[in-house]
Amino acid sequence: MSQHLNPAVIGEFRTIVGAAGLADTPEALAGFLAEWRGLYRGSATIALMPASTAEAAALVAICAREGIAVVPQGGNTGLVGGAVARSSPERPEVILSARRLRAVRAIDSDNDTITAESGCVLSELQGAAAAVDRLFPLSLAAEGSCQLGGNLSTNAGGTNVLRYGNTRNLVLGIEVVLADGRVYDGLRALRKDNTGYALRELFLGAEGTLGFITAATCRLFPRPRGVATAFVAVADPEAAVALHAAARRQLGEVLTAFELMSRYALELVLTAKPDARDPLDRPAPWYVLLETGGAETQTAAEQRLESFLDGQIQSDRVMDGVSCRSSSQRDALWSLRHEVSDAQRLAGASIKNDVAVPISAVPALIREGTDLVTRLVPGTRVVAFGHVGDGNIHFNLSKPPDMSDSRFLAQWEPLTVAVNDLVAKLGGTFSAEHGIGLLKTAELARFRGGVEIELMRRVKRALDPANLMNPGKLFGD
Amino acid sequence: MSQHLNPAVIGEFRTIVGAAGLADTPEALAGFLAEWRGLYRGSATIALMPASTAEAAALVAICAREGIAVVPQGGNTGLVGGAVARSSPERPEVILSARRLRAVRAIDSDNDTITAESGCVLSELQGAAAAVDRLFPLSLAAEGSCQLGGNLSTNAGGTNVLRYGNTRNLVLGIEVVLADGRVYDGLRALRKDNTGYALRELFLGAEGTLGFITAATCRLFPRPRGVATAFVAVADPEAAVALHAAARRQLGEVLTAFELMSRYALELVLTAKPDARDPLDRPAPWYVLLETGGAETQTAAEQRLESFLDGQIQSDRVMDGVSCRSSSQRDALWSLRHEVSDAQRLAGASIKNDVAVPISAVPALIREGTDLVTRLVPGTRVVAFGHVGDGNIHFNLSKPPDMSDSRFLAQWEPLTVAVNDLVAKLGGTFSAEHGIGLLKTAELARFRGGVEIELMRRVKRALDPANLMNPGKLFGD
Repeated sequence: MSQHLNPAVIGEFRTIVGAAGLADTPEALAGFLAEWRGLYRGSATIALMPASTAEAAALVAICAREGIAVVPQGGNTGLVGGAVARSSPERPEVILSARRLRAVRAIDSDNDTITAESGCVLSELQGAAAAVDRLFPLSLAAEGSCQLGGNLSTNAGGTNVLRYGNTRNLVLGIEVVLADGRVYDGLRALRKDNTGYALRELFLGAEGTLGFITAATCRLFPRPRGVATAFVAVADPEAAVALHAAARRQLGEVLTAFELMSRYALELVLTAKPDARDPLDRPAPWYVLLETGGAETQTAAEQRLESFLDGQIQSDRVMDGVSCRSSSQRDALWSLRHEVSDAQRLAGASIKNDVAVPISAVPALIREGTDLVTRLVPGTRVVAFGHVGDGNIHFNLSKPPDMSDSRFLAQWEPLTVAVNDLVAKLGGTFSAEHGIGLLKTAELARFRGGVEIELMRRVKRALDPANLMNPGKLFGD
Repeated sequence: MSQHLNPAVIGEFRTIVGAAGLADTPEALAGFLAEWRGLYRGSATIALMPASTAEAAALVAICAREGIAVVPQGGNTGLVGGAVARSSPERPEVILSARRLRAVRAIDSDNDTITAESGCVLSELQGAAAAVDRLFPLSLAAEGSCQLGGNLSTNAGGTNVLRYGNTRNLVLGIEVVLADGRVYDGLRALRKDNTGYALRELFLGAEGTLGFITAATCRLFPRPRGVATAFVAVADPEAAVALHAAARRQLGEVLTAFELMSRYALELVLTAKPDARDPLDRPAPWYVLLETGGAETQTAAEQRLESFLDGQIQSDRVMDGVSCRSSSQRDALWSLRHEVSDAQRLAGASIKNDVAVPISAVPALIREGTDLVTRLVPGTRVVAFGHVGDGNIHFNLSKPPDMSDSRFLAQWEPLTVAVNDLVAKLGGTFSAEHGIGLLKTAELARFRGGVEIELMRRVKRALDPANLMNPGKLFGD
């Protein structure tokens, strides 16, 4: 492939990182350019893999000097094209991969912190925490391959947000290579530190547009000893929200998950997975999977959850329910929830909306949203499920049974615009956890326009005046 | 008093806010200019009290047009001079007070959020939450007079950080009048919202240097039902840290407070307060006040804490202890902790250090810090107490018994520099919760200098290019 870069500059890169730190053949580059949903095809003639912060800084300094743009990349598991390079001879870009920044630099079990480099795979960090009897609570579908740096740069959410917050809440300090190649060393491990602006929070979730994060100090938590799980039937989303409020009040701090799914979503899973079983005897319109975890014993946790559910059944908020008695039962219940996305493929083409609203607006979102999309495209099937405790509903749409995939997907824009407008009317957001990347830049301008995006642009110009860090992401071209 | 401002401009202000919204006599201004520790004396010829966001925006727009600096002020309870005006004919400043922005705009008990204006007194917000059976967990000594806007602008800490985090962790959305008089409406009530930079976090803790916060949407929590409190003796700070780790592991999510104090600190309180009693029969070198709070019943909470402490006594980590059986006993234990600051006055002049280190470094801070200050000023008495769970120790110094106040206070700088240098060596911070204001600008430049303060200056210039918002705070003149 023809290089977009000056050979002398490539020589400088090679001097810094060595042969193991540089990919410039089509074969070696393939993994950096693929985008797993197939929405984008990356373009770059080189990927750089520094093995230390100093190497990363030296590379970025050269890029800054030469006006070469830098596309940070972690595990490349993002959903919005945030790590996609778009190099061209006129506007060269290099991929800066964290994959060789793999050190766990320190674990302090008295301070409950771990300091790790940004190329660590999330599941490795979970394991490192478990090895000292601690929990690193960040957990999401891609945890076996996504990297800490990507989690940090996207402020990743996942299944434990209800209890532990998003990634921003889990981080005490970061180390960043800035757009000019200097290093911001903010690797503090402090729970209180009121010394100026929230620089850390600014780099977290910036999708690589302000710098390249090389390491972070993250909070660890006690590992839950007693975990209790139940799968219950409710009449409608209103009942689910009322059940959530009751669970917050009566189970309080031990509530770790509160997941909603519709009967239709469950049926998709039951059809798709031959070994999946309906946990309840009779069908019900909606289901909630709820879980508690905490310091009390397993027996105490189970008793507390059952006693709570007995009360909810007596007050008619819950129609029916089952709580699990073994970890295999627990896995079976969770797999019903986790398989929804996959199972939805059975129903043909789909349009996915990663939206969040205030918890109190979840029923309105589902009811009004269903009316809206079935008016626009009669027969559209709504596959609604998600994290009620975070107000984060995957409001996914499957094509009408008798419509072709392509005809349905041609309605992508009007359906998405309609859903996002409804979400905005309800005080919600068009991107709960996936971020903006390349995919949602128009929506960012539409819903965060005016003063808000201007403030973001000012911050961007202040920290990266030459627009070298991940150009085009967030703001568009 | 002679005005620093053009009478026509004052007329414009008056047209916007009316007579009730403008103070320009020495009597009316007195409360805005006083600084309660007496470290500063404010100077201003006018204070403006808008009654709405629109009024605040109109006032700031005039200031921007005229080049008049704006000093935001809440309850004026800060400890570092962050709300002190320094107006002069050459560089006029107006005080912009939030005190008439008093509305609680909304409470959503299904979403567990409250939206309130920045002039609300903290205790009013606590009360508004309690009225709907919820907890607004921010709690600090000044809660009867400090205002939400000040809490937000200083990222206030307080006694519930261990469980609920600092103010930044409690806020989902904010509304801000920017330096040019426009309004940033970021009043979203969402737990997941990945749509661009962390603007909210940037304004929170910015000490009024980036804008004037007019309202916020804050998270509410379930009110704890069972609260258990104990006062235990430990041999040394190492034992306290080990006890904290055991409490995190065994009590987990219900641990709400873990406060350390030395025997000397307790003795000061016992001497100062005639009705205070030593809770234990025999003196011990160090004490920990620990508390749990959660959804379980009062009886269950007490049993769990006692069972935990029995185990700790058997393993010799705890020497002795008492748990309380009534709310009056609980109040008595807490007052021992709360009275330390006041009681320290008995020991004469004091120098206070609001520092934090990693929890694991708390013993080294106390041991090395004591060596250091007694070497510098022999006879100095260390009054160490604070929030071990946050690593936040009030490392306060009382003069040697035979030294005059003024001779001791003349050592303020070398003692503070030595303590802060030690804290930095231990990976800590010279300002855990009080902020920078005017008092600690030199320390900010010393410890956050180089790249870090340059990033902050760039952000400041990007959002307030004319340096009109609270000039001189954070960065110095």
